[in-house]
Amino acid sequence: MLKDWVKATRPEDEEIAARLEKARAELAGRQMAIKEKKLPVLVIMDGWGGAGKGGVLGKVIKNLDPRFYKTETLAKPGEDELRRPFLYRYFARIPEAGKFSFFDGSWMDEVTKARLSGETGDGAYKRQLNSIRRFERTLSDNGYLLVKFFFHISKNEQKKRLSELEEDKSTSWRVEKWDLWQNKHYEKCMDVYDEYIEATDQFIAPWYFIDSKSRKWAELQVTEQLVRSIDTALQNSGRAATVLQNTFPLVSMPKLSEVDLSVSVSDEDYKQELKDLQEELADLHNKIYQKKIPVVIAYEGWDAAGKGGNIKRLTAALDPRGFEVHPIASPEPREKNRHYLWRFWTRLPKDGHIAIFDRTWYGRVMVERLEGFCSENDWQRAYNEINEFEKELDDWGAVILKFWVHIDKDTQLARFNDRQATPEKQWKITEEDWRNREKWDLYESAIDEMIQKTSTEYAPWHILESNDKHYARLKALRTVIEAINEKL
Amino acid sequence: MLKDWVKATRPEDEEIAARLEKARAELAGRQMAIKEKKLPVLVIMDGWGGAGKGGVLGKVIKNLDPRFYKTETLAKPGEDELRRPFLYRYFARIPEAGKFSFFDGSWMDEVTKARLSGETGDGAYKRQLNSIRRFERTLSDNGYLLVKFFFHISKNEQKKRLSELEEDKSTSWRVEKWDLWQNKHYEKCMDVYDEYIEATDQFIAPWYFIDSKSRKWAELQVTEQLVRSIDTALQNSGRAATVLQNTFPLVSMPKLSEVDLSVSVSDEDYKQELKDLQEELADLHNKIYQKKIPVVIAYEGWDAAGKGGNIKRLTAALDPRGFEVHPIASPEPREKNRHYLWRFWTRLPKDGHIAIFDRTWYGRVMVERLEGFCSENDWQRAYNEINEFEKELDDWGAVILKFWVHIDKDTQLARFNDRQATPEKQWKITEEDWRNREKWDLYESAIDEMIQKTSTEYAPWHILESNDKHYARLKALRTVIEAINEKL
Repeated sequence: MLKDWVKATRPEDEEIAARLEKARAELAGRQMAIKEKKLPVLVIMDGWGGAGKGGVLGKVIKNLDPRFYKTETLAKPGEDELRRPFLYRYFARIPEAGKFSFFDGSWMDEVTKARLSGETGDGAYKRQLNSIRRFERTLSDNGYLLVKFFFHISKNEQKKRLSELEEDKSTSWRVEKWDLWQNKHYEKCMDVYDEYIEATDQFIAPWYFIDSKSRKWAELQVTEQLVRSIDTALQNSGRAATVLQNTFPLVSMPKLSEVDLSVSVSDEDYKQELKDLQEELADLHNKIYQKKIPVVIAYEGWDAAGKGGNIKRLTAALDPRGFEVHPIASPEPREKNRHYLWRFWTRLPKDGHIAIFDRTWYGRVMVERLEGFCSENDWQRAYNEINEFEKELDDWGAVILKFWVHIDKDTQLARFNDRQATPEKQWKITEEDWRNREKWDLYESAIDEMIQKTSTEYAPWHILESNDKHYARLKALRTVIEAINEKL
Repeated sequence: MLKDWVKATRPEDEEIAARLEKARAELAGRQMAIKEKKLPVLVIMDGWGGAGKGGVLGKVIKNLDPRFYKTETLAKPGEDELRRPFLYRYFARIPEAGKFSFFDGSWMDEVTKARLSGETGDGAYKRQLNSIRRFERTLSDNGYLLVKFFFHISKNEQKKRLSELEEDKSTSWRVEKWDLWQNKHYEKCMDVYDEYIEATDQFIAPWYFIDSKSRKWAELQVTEQLVRSIDTALQNSGRAATVLQNTFPLVSMPKLSEVDLSVSVSDEDYKQELKDLQEELADLHNKIYQKKIPVVIAYEGWDAAGKGGNIKRLTAALDPRGFEVHPIASPEPREKNRHYLWRFWTRLPKDGHIAIFDRTWYGRVMVERLEGFCSENDWQRAYNEINEFEKELDDWGAVILKFWVHIDKDTQLARFNDRQATPEKQWKITEEDWRNREKWDLYESAIDEMIQKTSTEYAPWHILESNDKHYARLKALRTVIEAINEKL
């Protein structure tokens, strides 16, 4: 694609100047429309070293109100970022609704550099390209406009520019070793870039090549294309996206109504086993810390099913420096203004650490679905989006555990009444709990669908029978221990 | 993709029956909505021989009003179809707005069979996959819903079914040699299908795999998915599509204002050269007929520029059995109800023949653009769509000639006045001509843009300076002769 790309004829300077004035004004004018329609715009600028991305970026943002954009220079991942899935740093930086983010360099940089250095083998590279395709698609499906530019110059032009920069003492610091290496191995780099571009050139986020021989001409191409892309996206706000078929291997799961809730454990056995399991887990926590294995534990369950107590028995076994519990309530404004998975991406643990989520991303297909907080198209797409999210965690090497803490309707009623009758427990029961209880059947069928559609081989659901809370606690501990042992 | 696809658990018969009843009613209910929103729906059913596509198709259409759908069984291309570009037969069969077309087998069949037989080499196969990706994208961009099903059964299941069909005399005729070959080489076929599916699995037209072990279950999957896809498409009617950057090699062209219109030829020279060139062309017409080379000649130009007379001098040299002139007026209802290129696809010549278009597909970026007959997004996308269309003709081996018959504004005025003053020429001049003339400047800049953006190396524009009509006629003949000679 890039290889046989033929540049458009560059217009006369006069025409460039006239069109640039017009395009700059148009781009500035689009800011309010973007804000009103809550369109998030992510612009990535990749290309050859010395092609002048930075310069053009500087010019483009001059047309914009600083409250409406952020720029990100994505150099090498930092130490903290290296300990998360490779998409983490990009997901963390997506713009909020109604604003621009400009990336000087993108995930393309990171992935192609590792490929060029031979660090990434064929299989891993294919996986990364798949991850990137999915990432870009889920952004688009969730209403993000993603505009991808590649700044192109020839080998000779690059050589000329790098020498000029080097010769001048005031600019020589800008020439990196990498740029020189790239120029020396221009053809090899071209092969890798061309392959990358072809693999990631999707109609929802196509590549635009920028002829970067002259800076004004480059700025004009970028600005005009931005205006065009924004106009298309504004017309399409509210667009429904195609619901994809599942392609991940699923394990077969029972319906909630088929789960035997009569299982229980004696007090004596409970005490002994709890002690044993907690000791075992404490030991394992050290091992995963040393081996830098990340663990993600997701808790969902009926109100009053005993999630809190269950989590407590787990954390009691853990070194407080090595885990974090994330209670998930309704999203804050800055969360609501972003992709619904953003607040979970940004809460992922470092490797070697454990993150426990008290309520999770599955809210999308339960409460958001049933209360109409998202469109039907949104929650129907979410099963696949969630499987893809967890696939990233799996590719990263994480242990993933998902617990459904289960009780029956009568047990819930008994516990609600008990809470209401016991002064020190009254804070635990609200009107909303009673309202949710009325929708038990609707929830049950949504949960059945969720468990069927998201029990992948790499991240299956585990049902914790919690009519007897003790039984459920032991089962949680056992399940976590088993999963960690398997990974070690 | 297909290889590691994991089937969903098949529900109990009772659940299937209940959901099927619901889904059938829903599909039937969608017919009016499709009609009202003028949504064209193209459903393709591919899959293993014996997987039961035909049976399911028969069931699905039972829910539909026969006025609203067509079914197409795409067996081998016929002799006539083999003489056109390979997408011709599929483009010709796209549904009209508001209706369904069901294809029992699709372009996948044709392309993978030829690949399996070794008939298609690596390069040609890559080209075909590209053509198919573009074809499916341009359908989607132009408002078509394309739903792609692959009916999947295991090797053993296929073997069992084929033997059962063969043993029964009343059904043995349904087993084709190809089916048996496919079962014998199941793994090899699987490799090719998987590669094809991965290459053509675009988010605008994803693949849906159908677990075809039981017919009712297969029908349910198809019907439910159809309803879901239709609902998404109905929500998105009027969606603008991303405008892609040109990726085809362009040649540099002058602006119309830079063309020297003072060129002319003496009467004497004209007569002699006309005779010579026509003889030469007549001779070449025989050769392209024998060598089965198709020729597509497109005429556009200003009103009164002399298109008619120019075409006449060309056809005077040709054997009437080997060419056809297509005068293109505003589209008829059945044309307006389809992709705007449909009426040109269906008018392509057979190989060895010449098709001359008096006005063309370029109406999209001239009159349709300027009169607002299509949206801005439509005509902006059209440059690339047209380049892709002509690429198909080029891949097919056609000689492609595009003439812009050019005069200046004064010459047009003189000819208009002459027409008005001459009784036998008055039919040639209408109010519309005068109205168009008022928009000369708008047209000129649209034409400049068109010529810049669609002068690909494989199908460049030729400007015929027609202030002197004789000069233009000779140049047309010379250009045609040269292009044919080059191809021979």
